[in-house]
Amino acid sequence: MIELSLVGIGSGSPEHITLQGIKALNAADVILIPRKSQGKNDLAELRESICAAVLTNRSTRIVHFDMPLRDSADADYVGAVNRWHDAIADIWFEKIGQHFSQNENSSEKTKLKTANKAGEKLTGKLALLVWGDPSLYDSTLRIAERLKLRLDLQVSVVPGITALQALTAAHAIALNDINAPVTITTGRQLREHGWPASADTLAVMLDGECSFRDLDPTDIHIWWGAYLGMPEQVLAHGPLAQVCEFIMQKRQAARCAHGWIMDTYLLRRISQSNTQTVN
Amino acid sequence: MIELSLVGIGSGSPEHITLQGIKALNAADVILIPRKSQGKNDLAELRESICAAVLTNRSTRIVHFDMPLRDSADADYVGAVNRWHDAIADIWFEKIGQHFSQNENSSEKTKLKTANKAGEKLTGKLALLVWGDPSLYDSTLRIAERLKLRLDLQVSVVPGITALQALTAAHAIALNDINAPVTITTGRQLREHGWPASADTLAVMLDGECSFRDLDPTDIHIWWGAYLGMPEQVLAHGPLAQVCEFIMQKRQAARCAHGWIMDTYLLRRISQSNTQTVN
Repeated sequence: MIELSLVGIGSGSPEHITLQGIKALNAADVILIPRKSQGKNDLAELRESICAAVLTNRSTRIVHFDMPLRDSADADYVGAVNRWHDAIADIWFEKIGQHFSQNENSSEKTKLKTANKAGEKLTGKLALLVWGDPSLYDSTLRIAERLKLRLDLQVSVVPGITALQALTAAHAIALNDINAPVTITTGRQLREHGWPASADTLAVMLDGECSFRDLDPTDIHIWWGAYLGMPEQVLAHGPLAQVCEFIMQKRQAARCAHGWIMDTYLLRRISQSNTQTVN
Repeated sequence: MIELSLVGIGSGSPEHITLQGIKALNAADVILIPRKSQGKNDLAELRESICAAVLTNRSTRIVHFDMPLRDSADADYVGAVNRWHDAIADIWFEKIGQHFSQNENSSEKTKLKTANKAGEKLTGKLALLVWGDPSLYDSTLRIAERLKLRLDLQVSVVPGITALQALTAAHAIALNDINAPVTITTGRQLREHGWPASADTLAVMLDGECSFRDLDPTDIHIWWGAYLGMPEQVLAHGPLAQVCEFIMQKRQAARCAHGWIMDTYLLRRISQSNTQTVN
Protein backbone atom coordinates (compact mmCIF):
# COMPACT_ATOMS: atom_id res chain seq x y z
CA MET A 1 0.00 0.00 0.00
CA ILE A 2 1.06 3.59 -0.68
CA GLU A 3 0.49 5.84 2.31
CA LEU A 4 0.03 9.37 1.00
CA SER A 5 0.35 12.18 3.51
CA LEU A 6 -0.93 15.62 2.46
CA VAL A 7 0.91 18.06 4.68
CA GLY A 8 -0.50 21.57 5.09
CA ILE A 9 2.52 23.86 5.26
CA GLY A 10 0.72 27.10 6.01
CA SER A 11 0.64 30.29 4.01
CA GLY A 12 3.91 32.04 3.46
CA SER A 13 5.97 31.65 6.58
CA PRO A 14 8.16 28.54 6.82
CA GLU A 15 7.39 28.76 10.56
CA HIS A 16 3.73 27.90 9.93
CA ILE A 17 4.66 24.23 9.75
CA THR A 18 3.33 22.19 12.69
CA LEU A 19 5.14 19.51 14.68
CA GLN A 20 2.70 17.05 13.11
CA GLY A 21 3.76 18.26 9.68
CA ILE A 22 7.44 17.89 10.51
CA LYS A 23 6.80 14.35 11.72
CA ALA A 24 4.88 13.43 8.56
CA LEU A 25 7.62 14.79 6.28
CA ASN A 26 10.28 12.85 8.15
CA ALA A 27 8.21 9.68 7.96
CA ALA A 28 8.09 9.87 4.16
CA ASP A 29 10.23 7.80 1.81
CA VAL A 30 9.58 10.31 -0.96
CA ILE A 31 8.42 13.93 -0.98
CA LEU A 32 6.98 15.14 -4.29
CA ILE A 33 7.56 18.82 -5.07
CA PRO A 34 5.89 20.48 -8.08
CA ARG A 35 7.64 22.94 -10.39
CA LYS A 36 5.49 25.28 -12.44
CA SER A 37 6.39 26.81 -15.76
CA GLN A 38 9.04 29.51 -15.79
CA GLY A 39 8.11 32.98 -14.71
CA LYS A 40 5.36 31.88 -12.34
CA ASN A 41 5.90 31.80 -8.62
CA ASP A 42 5.67 28.11 -7.95
CA LEU A 43 6.42 28.20 -4.23
CA ALA A 44 8.92 25.42 -4.94
CA GLU A 45 11.55 27.49 -3.16
CA LEU A 46 9.41 27.78 -0.03
CA ARG A 47 8.80 24.04 -0.08
CA GLU A 48 12.52 23.36 -0.50
CA SER A 49 13.41 25.65 2.38
CA ILE A 50 10.86 24.00 4.66
CA CYS A 51 12.25 20.57 3.78
CA ALA A 52 15.82 21.80 4.34
CA ALA A 53 14.86 23.24 7.72
CA VAL A 54 12.89 20.33 9.15
CA LEU A 55 14.08 17.11 7.46
CA THR A 56 16.28 15.04 9.75
CA ASN A 57 15.57 11.67 8.11
CA ARG A 58 18.43 11.21 5.66
CA SER A 59 16.65 8.48 3.74
CA THR A 60 13.78 10.75 2.73
CA ARG A 61 14.18 11.61 -0.95
CA ILE A 62 12.88 14.75 -2.64
CA VAL A 63 11.51 14.19 -6.14
CA HIS A 64 10.44 17.03 -8.44
CA PHE A 65 7.82 17.00 -11.13
CA ASP A 66 6.75 19.56 -13.71
CA MET A 67 3.27 20.85 -13.04
CA PRO A 68 1.07 20.63 -16.16
CA LEU A 69 -0.68 23.79 -17.28
CA ARG A 70 -4.42 24.19 -17.04
CA ASP A 71 -5.99 25.34 -20.31
CA SER A 72 -7.37 28.67 -19.11
CA ALA A 73 -8.64 29.49 -22.63
CA ASP A 74 -10.97 26.47 -22.57
CA ALA A 75 -14.56 27.75 -22.47
CA ASP A 76 -15.51 24.53 -20.67
CA TYR A 77 -14.17 25.61 -17.25
CA VAL A 78 -15.29 22.53 -15.35
CA GLY A 79 -14.05 20.17 -18.03
CA ALA A 80 -10.70 21.95 -18.23
CA VAL A 81 -10.20 21.71 -14.46
CA ASN A 82 -11.14 18.03 -14.49
CA ARG A 83 -8.69 17.30 -17.33
CA TRP A 84 -5.98 19.25 -15.48
CA HIS A 85 -6.54 17.17 -12.34
CA ASP A 86 -6.39 14.01 -14.48
CA ALA A 87 -3.04 15.12 -15.89
CA ILE A 88 -1.60 15.79 -12.43
CA ALA A 89 -2.82 12.42 -11.18
CA ASP A 90 -1.10 10.76 -14.18
CA ILE A 91 2.19 12.38 -13.22
CA TRP A 92 1.90 11.35 -9.57
CA PHE A 93 1.13 7.81 -10.69
CA GLU A 94 4.18 7.79 -12.93
CA LYS A 95 6.44 9.15 -10.17
CA ILE A 96 5.10 6.62 -7.68
CA GLY A 97 5.83 3.87 -10.18
CA GLN A 98 9.39 5.13 -10.61
CA HIS A 99 10.24 5.60 -6.97
CA PHE A 100 8.31 2.89 -5.18
CA SER A 101 8.42 -0.04 -7.57
CA GLN A 102 11.75 -1.27 -6.25
CA ASN A 103 10.69 -1.03 -2.63
CA GLU A 104 10.83 -4.56 -1.22
CA ASN A 105 10.84 -3.63 2.45
CA SER A 106 7.27 -4.57 3.20
CA SER A 107 6.36 -7.89 4.70
CA GLU A 108 5.43 -10.79 2.40
CA LYS A 109 1.93 -10.66 3.79
CA THR A 110 1.46 -6.99 2.86
CA LYS A 111 2.92 -7.51 -0.57
CA LEU A 112 0.59 -10.39 -1.32
CA LYS A 113 -2.42 -8.47 -0.09
CA THR A 114 -1.50 -5.43 -2.14
CA ALA A 115 -0.76 -7.45 -5.23
CA ASN A 116 -4.14 -9.12 -4.99
CA LYS A 117 -5.99 -5.90 -4.50
CA ALA A 118 -4.57 -3.49 -7.02
CA GLY A 119 -2.32 -5.49 -9.26
CA GLU A 120 0.63 -3.52 -7.94
CA LYS A 121 3.32 -4.32 -5.43
CA LEU A 122 3.92 -0.69 -4.63
CA THR A 123 4.48 0.12 -1.02
CA GLY A 124 5.90 3.04 0.92
CA LYS A 125 5.21 6.50 2.25
CA LEU A 126 4.73 9.52 0.02
CA ALA A 127 4.27 13.11 1.20
CA LEU A 128 3.12 16.25 -0.57
CA LEU A 129 3.52 19.76 0.84
CA VAL A 130 0.22 21.55 0.40
CA TRP A 131 0.04 25.35 0.50
CA GLY A 132 -2.28 26.48 3.31
CA ASP A 133 -4.55 23.66 4.45
CA PRO A 134 -5.51 20.73 2.19
CA SER A 135 -9.18 21.30 3.08
CA LEU A 136 -9.57 24.88 1.82
CA TYR A 137 -9.66 25.76 -1.89
CA ASP A 138 -7.12 23.12 -2.74
CA SER A 139 -7.37 20.27 -5.22
CA THR A 140 -4.85 17.84 -3.79
CA LEU A 141 -7.47 15.68 -2.09
CA ARG A 142 -9.46 15.49 -5.34
CA ILE A 143 -6.40 14.48 -7.32
CA ALA A 144 -5.56 11.83 -4.72
CA GLU A 145 -9.05 10.38 -5.18
CA ARG A 146 -8.17 9.62 -8.80
CA LEU A 147 -5.15 7.60 -7.70
CA LYS A 148 -7.30 5.43 -5.47
CA LEU A 149 -8.78 3.92 -8.63
CA ARG A 150 -5.35 2.79 -9.76
CA LEU A 151 -3.46 2.09 -6.55
CA ASP A 152 -3.92 0.68 -3.09
CA LEU A 153 -3.72 4.15 -1.56
CA GLN A 154 -4.37 5.42 1.94
CA VAL A 155 -4.62 9.21 2.29
CA SER A 156 -4.02 11.11 5.51
CA VAL A 157 -4.15 14.86 6.02
CA VAL A 158 -2.06 17.12 8.24
CA PRO A 159 -3.89 20.44 8.67
CA GLY A 160 -2.04 23.70 8.03
CA ILE A 161 -2.50 27.43 8.58
CA THR A 162 -4.65 28.99 5.85
CA ALA A 163 -4.07 32.40 4.22
CA LEU A 164 -7.23 33.53 5.98
CA GLN A 165 -5.69 32.77 9.37
CA ALA A 166 -2.46 34.47 8.33
CA LEU A 167 -4.60 37.49 7.42
CA THR A 168 -6.49 37.71 10.72
CA ALA A 169 -3.27 37.08 12.68
CA ALA A 170 -1.43 39.84 10.80
CA HIS A 171 -4.23 42.30 11.55
CA ALA A 172 -4.73 40.87 15.08
CA ILE A 173 -8.47 40.67 14.47
CA ALA A 174 -11.15 38.05 15.03
CA LEU A 175 -12.69 36.40 11.97
CA ASN A 176 -16.17 36.40 13.50
CA ASP A 177 -18.29 38.68 15.63
CA ILE A 178 -19.39 36.93 18.82
CA ASN A 179 -21.61 33.95 18.00
CA ALA A 180 -21.98 35.30 14.44
CA PRO A 181 -21.48 33.35 11.21
CA VAL A 182 -18.73 33.90 8.66
CA THR A 183 -18.92 33.04 4.98
CA ILE A 184 -15.77 32.07 3.13
CA THR A 185 -16.06 32.56 -0.59
CA THR A 186 -14.13 33.26 -3.79
CA GLY A 187 -13.64 36.31 -5.96
CA ARG A 188 -15.56 34.59 -8.76
CA GLN A 189 -18.55 33.94 -6.48
CA LEU A 190 -18.55 37.53 -5.28
CA ARG A 191 -18.49 38.85 -8.86
CA GLU A 192 -21.18 36.48 -10.11
CA HIS A 193 -23.55 36.44 -7.16
CA GLY A 194 -22.78 39.59 -5.16
CA TRP A 195 -22.79 39.78 -1.37
CA PRO A 196 -24.41 36.56 -0.11
CA ALA A 197 -27.65 36.73 1.84
CA SER A 198 -27.43 36.22 5.60
CA ALA A 199 -23.72 37.10 5.78
CA ASP A 200 -22.28 40.08 7.61
CA THR A 201 -18.70 38.86 7.45
CA LEU A 202 -17.19 37.65 4.21
CA ALA A 203 -13.72 36.19 3.75
CA VAL A 204 -12.70 36.26 0.10
CA MET A 205 -10.02 34.04 -1.40
CA LEU A 206 -8.80 33.31 -4.93
CA ASP A 207 -9.60 36.81 -6.11
CA GLY A 208 -7.29 38.07 -8.83
CA GLU A 209 -9.60 40.93 -9.79
CA CYS A 210 -10.20 43.06 -6.67
CA SER A 211 -13.86 42.05 -6.81
CA PHE A 212 -14.58 44.21 -3.76
CA ARG A 213 -14.57 47.23 -6.09
CA ASP A 214 -17.97 46.27 -7.51
CA LEU A 215 -19.68 46.32 -4.10
CA ASP A 216 -21.66 49.20 -2.67
CA PRO A 217 -19.08 50.15 -0.01
CA THR A 218 -21.57 51.65 2.47
CA ASP A 219 -20.89 50.38 6.00
CA ILE A 220 -18.34 47.83 4.73
CA HIS A 221 -14.93 47.58 6.38
CA ILE A 222 -12.08 45.71 4.67
CA TRP A 223 -8.94 44.06 6.05
CA TRP A 224 -6.63 43.16 3.18
CA GLY A 225 -3.25 41.46 3.01
CA ALA A 226 -0.83 40.23 0.35
CA TYR A 227 2.26 37.98 0.60
CA LEU A 228 0.93 37.06 4.04
CA GLY A 229 3.51 35.54 6.35
CA MET A 230 6.33 36.48 3.94
CA PRO A 231 8.95 39.20 4.31
CA GLU A 232 7.12 41.08 1.52
CA GLN A 233 3.85 41.14 3.50
CA VAL A 234 1.67 44.21 2.91
CA LEU A 235 -1.49 45.07 4.84
CA ALA A 236 -4.22 47.66 4.59
CA HIS A 237 -7.57 48.12 6.29
CA GLY A 238 -10.30 50.68 6.69
CA PRO A 239 -13.78 51.65 5.47
CA LEU A 240 -14.04 50.21 1.95
CA ALA A 241 -15.16 53.55 0.53
CA GLN A 242 -11.94 55.15 1.78
CA VAL A 243 -9.35 52.45 1.04
CA CYS A 244 -10.70 50.70 -2.07
CA GLU A 245 -8.63 52.72 -4.55
CA PHE A 246 -5.57 52.67 -2.28
CA ILE A 247 -5.63 48.86 -2.04
CA MET A 248 -6.08 48.47 -5.80
CA GLN A 249 -3.09 50.72 -6.48
CA LYS A 250 -0.97 49.08 -3.81
CA ARG A 251 -1.83 45.65 -5.20
CA GLN A 252 -0.97 46.66 -8.75
CA ALA A 253 2.36 48.21 -7.70
CA ALA A 254 3.33 45.17 -5.59
CA ARG A 255 2.40 42.81 -8.41
CA CYS A 256 4.60 44.73 -10.83
CA ALA A 257 7.48 44.82 -8.37
CA HIS A 258 7.41 41.09 -7.54
CA GLY A 259 6.06 39.65 -10.79
CA TRP A 260 3.28 37.82 -8.91
CA ILE A 261 0.88 38.39 -6.03
CA MET A 262 -1.25 36.37 -3.66
CA ASP A 263 -3.73 38.24 -1.50
CA THR A 264 -6.88 37.71 0.49
CA TYR A 265 -9.26 39.89 2.44
CA LEU A 266 -12.02 40.07 4.99
CA LEU A 267 -15.12 42.22 4.53
CA ARG A 268 -17.43 43.08 7.41
CA ARG A 269 -20.72 44.92 7.22
CA ILE A 270 -20.82 47.13 10.28
CA SER A 271 -24.48 47.75 10.85
CA GLN A 272 -25.41 51.03 12.54
CA SER A 273 -28.52 49.40 13.96
CA ASN A 274 -26.51 46.87 15.89
CA THR A 275 -26.60 48.56 19.28
CA GLN A 276 -26.23 45.60 21.59
CA THR A 277 -22.80 44.11 21.12
CA VAL A 278 -20.49 41.83 22.97
CA ASN A 279 -16.99 43.21 23.09
CA MET B 1 5.55 48.16 27.03
CA ILE B 2 3.97 44.74 27.52
CA GLU B 3 4.18 42.61 24.39
CA LEU B 4 1.33 40.12 24.50
CA SER B 5 1.54 37.14 22.16
CA LEU B 6 -1.63 35.11 21.62
CA VAL B 7 -0.42 31.72 20.48
CA GLY B 8 -2.89 29.43 18.70
CA ILE B 9 -2.05 25.93 19.91
CA GLY B 10 -4.40 23.99 17.67
CA SER B 11 -7.24 21.72 18.62
CA GLY B 12 -6.42 18.67 20.65
CA SER B 13 -3.10 17.39 19.45
CA PRO B 14 0.02 18.84 21.10
CA GLU B 15 1.58 18.36 17.64
CA HIS B 16 -0.66 21.07 16.17
CA ILE B 17 1.73 23.70 17.51
CA THR B 18 3.64 25.54 14.79
CA LEU B 19 7.31 26.50 14.77
CA GLN B 20 6.13 30.10 15.03
CA GLY B 21 4.16 29.18 18.15
CA ILE B 22 7.18 27.45 19.71
CA LYS B 23 9.29 30.53 19.03
CA ALA B 24 6.71 32.86 20.59
CA LEU B 25 6.42 30.73 23.73
CA ASN B 26 10.18 30.66 24.16
CA ALA B 27 10.39 34.41 23.69
CA ALA B 28 8.00 35.01 26.60
CA ASP B 29 9.04 36.07 30.09
CA VAL B 30 5.74 34.80 31.46
CA ILE B 31 3.14 32.35 30.11
CA LEU B 32 -0.31 32.68 31.67
CA ILE B 33 -2.29 29.43 31.95
CA PRO B 34 -5.94 29.42 33.07
CA ARG B 35 -7.46 26.90 35.44
CA LYS B 36 -11.20 26.42 35.40
CA SER B 37 -13.35 25.27 38.29
CA GLN B 38 -13.06 21.65 39.36
CA GLY B 39 -14.80 19.00 37.32
CA LYS B 40 -14.59 20.91 34.05
CA ASN B 41 -12.03 20.05 31.43
CA ASP B 42 -9.91 23.17 31.44
CA LEU B 43 -7.31 22.02 28.90
CA ALA B 44 -4.71 23.18 31.44
CA GLU B 45 -3.11 19.76 31.18
CA LEU B 46 -2.77 20.06 27.39
CA ARG B 47 -1.28 23.54 27.76
CA GLU B 48 1.18 22.26 30.39
CA SER B 49 2.23 19.36 28.20
CA ILE B 50 2.80 21.65 25.21
CA CYS B 51 4.93 23.96 27.34
CA ALA B 52 6.86 21.01 28.76
CA ALA B 53 7.48 19.67 25.26
CA VAL B 54 8.58 22.85 23.52
CA LEU B 55 10.00 25.25 26.13
CA THR B 56 13.77 25.45 26.00
CA ASN B 57 14.11 28.94 27.49
CA ARG B 58 14.71 28.31 31.18
CA SER B 59 13.89 31.87 32.17
CA THR B 60 10.30 31.62 30.88
CA ARG B 61 7.98 31.34 33.87
CA ILE B 62 4.56 29.68 33.87
CA VAL B 63 1.95 31.49 35.95
CA HIS B 64 -1.52 30.08 36.61
CA PHE B 65 -4.74 31.93 37.23
CA ASP B 66 -8.23 30.78 38.20
CA MET B 67 -10.69 31.36 35.37
CA PRO B 68 -13.77 33.23 36.61
CA LEU B 69 -17.15 31.69 35.90
CA ARG B 70 -19.58 33.23 33.45
CA ASP B 71 -23.05 33.68 34.90
CA SER B 72 -24.93 31.36 32.56
CA ALA B 73 -28.20 31.96 34.44
CA ASP B 74 -28.11 35.69 33.59
CA ALA B 75 -30.95 36.45 31.19
CA ASP B 76 -28.86 39.31 29.80
CA TYR B 77 -26.56 37.10 27.70
CA VAL B 78 -24.59 39.92 26.12
CA GLY B 79 -24.18 41.74 29.42
CA ALA B 80 -23.07 38.56 31.17
CA VAL B 81 -20.44 37.83 28.52
CA ASN B 82 -19.15 41.40 28.68
CA ARG B 83 -18.90 41.27 32.48
CA TRP B 84 -17.12 37.91 32.24
CA HIS B 85 -14.58 39.37 29.81
CA ASP B 86 -14.10 42.34 32.19
CA ALA B 87 -13.39 39.93 35.05
CA ILE B 88 -10.81 38.00 33.03
CA ALA B 89 -9.12 41.25 31.95
CA ASP B 90 -8.94 42.28 35.62
CA ILE B 91 -7.14 39.07 36.49
CA TRP B 92 -4.67 39.42 33.62
CA PHE B 93 -3.99 43.00 34.70
CA GLU B 94 -3.36 41.84 38.26
CA LYS B 95 -1.03 39.03 37.14
CA ILE B 96 0.88 41.39 34.85
CA GLY B 97 1.30 43.79 37.77
CA GLN B 98 2.64 40.98 39.96
CA HIS B 99 5.05 39.49 37.49
CA PHE B 100 6.26 42.43 35.45
CA SER B 101 6.43 45.28 37.94
CA GLN B 102 9.89 44.35 39.15
CA ASN B 103 11.25 44.05 35.64
CA GLU B 104 14.01 46.65 35.32
CA ASN B 105 15.67 45.23 32.24
CA SER B 106 14.38 47.75 29.78
CA SER B 107 16.39 50.75 28.74
CA GLU B 108 15.91 54.06 30.59
CA LYS B 109 14.48 55.51 27.39
CA THR B 110 11.81 52.82 27.11
CA LYS B 111 10.92 53.10 30.78
CA LEU B 112 10.49 56.85 30.56
CA LYS B 113 8.36 56.54 27.44
CA THR B 114 6.16 53.87 29.00
CA ALA B 115 5.83 55.76 32.26
CA ASN B 116 4.73 58.85 30.39
CA LYS B 117 2.23 57.02 28.27
CA ALA B 118 0.38 54.72 30.59
CA GLY B 119 1.47 55.62 34.12
CA GLU B 120 3.09 52.21 34.40
CA LYS B 121 6.66 51.06 34.14
CA LEU B 122 5.65 47.57 33.12
CA THR B 123 7.70 45.97 30.43
CA GLY B 124 8.23 42.44 29.16
CA LYS B 125 6.79 39.65 27.08
CA LEU B 126 3.66 37.77 28.00
CA ALA B 127 2.22 34.78 26.12
CA LEU B 128 -1.15 33.06 26.27
CA LEU B 129 -1.88 29.65 24.74
CA VAL B 130 -5.15 29.93 22.83
CA TRP B 131 -7.15 26.83 21.96
CA GLY B 132 -7.55 26.54 18.18
CA ASP B 133 -6.87 29.87 16.48
CA PRO B 134 -7.29 33.23 18.24
CA SER B 135 -9.39 34.46 15.28
CA LEU B 136 -12.21 31.89 15.40
CA TYR B 137 -14.87 31.88 18.14
CA ASP B 138 -12.40 32.93 20.77
CA SER B 139 -12.56 35.91 23.13
CA THR B 140 -8.88 36.38 23.91
CA LEU B 141 -8.45 39.25 21.43
CA ARG B 142 -11.51 41.02 22.87
CA ILE B 143 -10.20 40.64 26.42
CA ALA B 144 -6.80 41.96 25.35
CA GLU B 145 -8.53 45.06 23.92
CA ARG B 146 -9.68 45.90 27.46
CA LEU B 147 -6.11 45.85 28.72
CA LYS B 148 -5.04 48.36 26.09
CA LEU B 149 -7.04 50.96 28.00
CA ARG B 150 -4.97 50.36 31.12
CA LEU B 151 -1.53 49.39 29.81
CA ASP B 152 0.90 50.18 27.07
CA LEU B 153 0.14 46.89 25.32
CA GLN B 154 1.11 45.52 21.93
CA VAL B 155 -0.77 42.42 20.80
CA SER B 156 0.51 39.93 18.26
CA VAL B 157 -1.21 36.76 17.07
CA VAL B 158 0.23 33.38 16.11
CA PRO B 159 -2.37 31.45 14.10
CA GLY B 160 -3.23 27.89 15.09
CA ILE B 161 -5.12 24.90 13.70
CA THR B 162 -8.88 25.19 14.32
CA ALA B 163 -11.19 22.34 15.33
CA LEU B 164 -12.74 22.68 11.89
CA GLN B 165 -9.41 21.91 10.24
CA ALA B 166 -8.84 19.03 12.62
CA LEU B 167 -12.27 17.74 11.54
CA THR B 168 -11.66 17.92 7.81
CA ALA B 169 -8.17 16.45 8.25
CA ALA B 170 -9.52 13.53 10.30
CA HIS B 171 -12.11 12.76 7.63
CA ALA B 172 -9.63 13.57 4.81
CA ILE B 173 -12.26 15.76 3.12
CA ALA B 174 -12.28 19.24 1.62
CA LEU B 175 -14.18 21.97 3.44
CA ASN B 176 -15.50 23.46 0.20
CA ASP B 177 -16.77 22.24 -3.13
CA ILE B 178 -14.72 23.69 -5.99
CA ASN B 179 -15.04 27.48 -6.08
CA ALA B 180 -18.06 27.18 -3.74
CA PRO B 181 -18.62 29.15 -0.54
CA VAL B 182 -18.64 27.75 2.99
CA THR B 183 -20.46 29.24 5.94
CA ILE B 184 -19.04 28.78 9.43
CA THR B 185 -21.65 29.19 12.13
CA THR B 186 -22.64 28.20 15.67
CA GLY B 187 -25.18 25.79 17.12
CA ARG B 188 -27.12 28.72 18.53
CA GLN B 189 -27.34 30.38 15.08
CA LEU B 190 -28.50 27.14 13.49
CA ARG B 191 -31.22 26.67 16.11
CA GLU B 192 -32.45 30.25 15.98
CA HIS B 193 -32.20 30.96 12.25
CA GLY B 194 -32.18 27.57 10.54
CA TRP B 195 -30.05 26.73 7.51
CA PRO B 196 -28.69 30.04 6.15
CA ALA B 197 -29.68 31.21 2.68
CA SER B 198 -27.10 30.82 -0.08
CA ALA B 199 -25.11 28.16 1.78
CA ASP B 200 -24.66 24.59 0.63
CA THR B 201 -21.87 23.80 3.07
CA LEU B 202 -22.17 24.64 6.74
CA ALA B 203 -19.50 24.16 9.39
CA VAL B 204 -21.01 24.24 12.86
CA MET B 205 -19.05 25.00 16.02
CA LEU B 206 -19.96 25.65 19.68
CA ASP B 207 -22.95 23.34 19.49
CA GLY B 208 -23.72 21.59 22.76
CA GLU B 209 -27.19 20.54 21.65
CA CYS B 210 -26.87 18.52 18.45
CA SER B 211 -28.74 21.25 16.60
CA PHE B 212 -28.55 19.25 13.37
CA ARG B 213 -31.41 17.12 14.66
CA ASP B 214 -33.89 19.93 13.98
CA LEU B 215 -33.02 20.14 10.28
CA ASP B 216 -34.90 18.49 7.45
CA PRO B 217 -32.22 15.89 6.68
CA THR B 218 -33.13 15.45 2.99
CA ASP B 219 -29.98 15.52 0.83
CA ILE B 220 -27.81 16.60 3.79
CA HIS B 221 -24.58 14.75 4.53
CA ILE B 222 -22.82 15.17 7.88
CA TRP B 223 -19.18 14.72 8.91
CA TRP B 224 -18.92 14.79 12.71
CA GLY B 225 -16.02 14.52 15.11
CA ALA B 226 -15.40 14.80 18.85
CA TYR B 227 -12.16 15.08 20.86
CA LEU B 228 -10.52 15.89 17.54
CA GLY B 229 -6.77 15.41 17.49
CA MET B 230 -6.88 13.63 20.85
CA PRO B 231 -6.39 9.94 21.58
CA GLU B 232 -10.14 9.79 22.40
CA GLN B 233 -11.09 11.07 18.91
CA VAL B 234 -14.38 9.71 17.55
CA LEU B 235 -15.69 10.25 14.03
CA ALA B 236 -18.90 9.53 12.16
CA HIS B 237 -20.27 10.53 8.79
CA GLY B 238 -23.06 9.72 6.40
CA PRO B 239 -26.45 10.92 5.17
CA LEU B 240 -27.93 12.90 8.06
CA ALA B 241 -31.17 10.92 7.93
CA GLN B 242 -29.23 7.71 8.52
CA VAL B 243 -26.63 8.79 11.11
CA CYS B 244 -28.40 11.51 13.10
CA GLU B 245 -29.58 9.21 15.90
CA PHE B 246 -26.31 7.27 15.89
CA ILE B 247 -24.26 10.45 16.38
CA MET B 248 -26.51 11.70 19.17
CA GLN B 249 -26.19 8.41 21.03
CA LYS B 250 -22.45 8.20 20.45
CA ARG B 251 -22.03 11.77 21.68
CA GLN B 252 -24.08 11.14 24.81
CA ALA B 253 -22.16 7.95 25.63
CA ALA B 254 -18.77 9.62 25.08
CA ARG B 255 -19.77 12.59 27.19
CA CYS B 256 -20.79 10.29 30.05
CA ALA B 257 -17.58 8.29 29.76
CA HIS B 258 -15.24 11.32 29.75
CA GLY B 259 -17.26 13.80 31.80
CA TRP B 260 -16.96 16.41 29.02
CA ILE B 261 -17.10 16.63 25.25
CA MET B 262 -16.01 19.00 22.49
CA ASP B 263 -17.29 18.30 19.01
CA THR B 264 -17.85 19.97 15.67
CA TYR B 265 -19.35 19.01 12.34
CA LEU B 266 -19.69 19.81 8.68
CA LEU B 267 -23.02 19.68 6.85
CA ARG B 268 -23.24 19.61 3.07
CA ARG B 269 -26.36 19.80 0.97
CA ILE B 270 -25.77 17.43 -1.92
CA SER B 271 -28.06 18.68 -4.63
CA GLN B 272 -29.36 16.12 -7.10
CA SER B 273 -29.67 18.82 -9.74
CA ASN B 274 -25.96 19.54 -9.62
CA THR B 275 -24.97 17.57 -12.68
CA GLN B 276 -21.86 19.42 -13.77
CA THR B 277 -19.20 18.97 -11.13
CA VAL B 278 -15.50 19.36 -10.84
CA ASN B 279 -13.92 16.41 -9.11
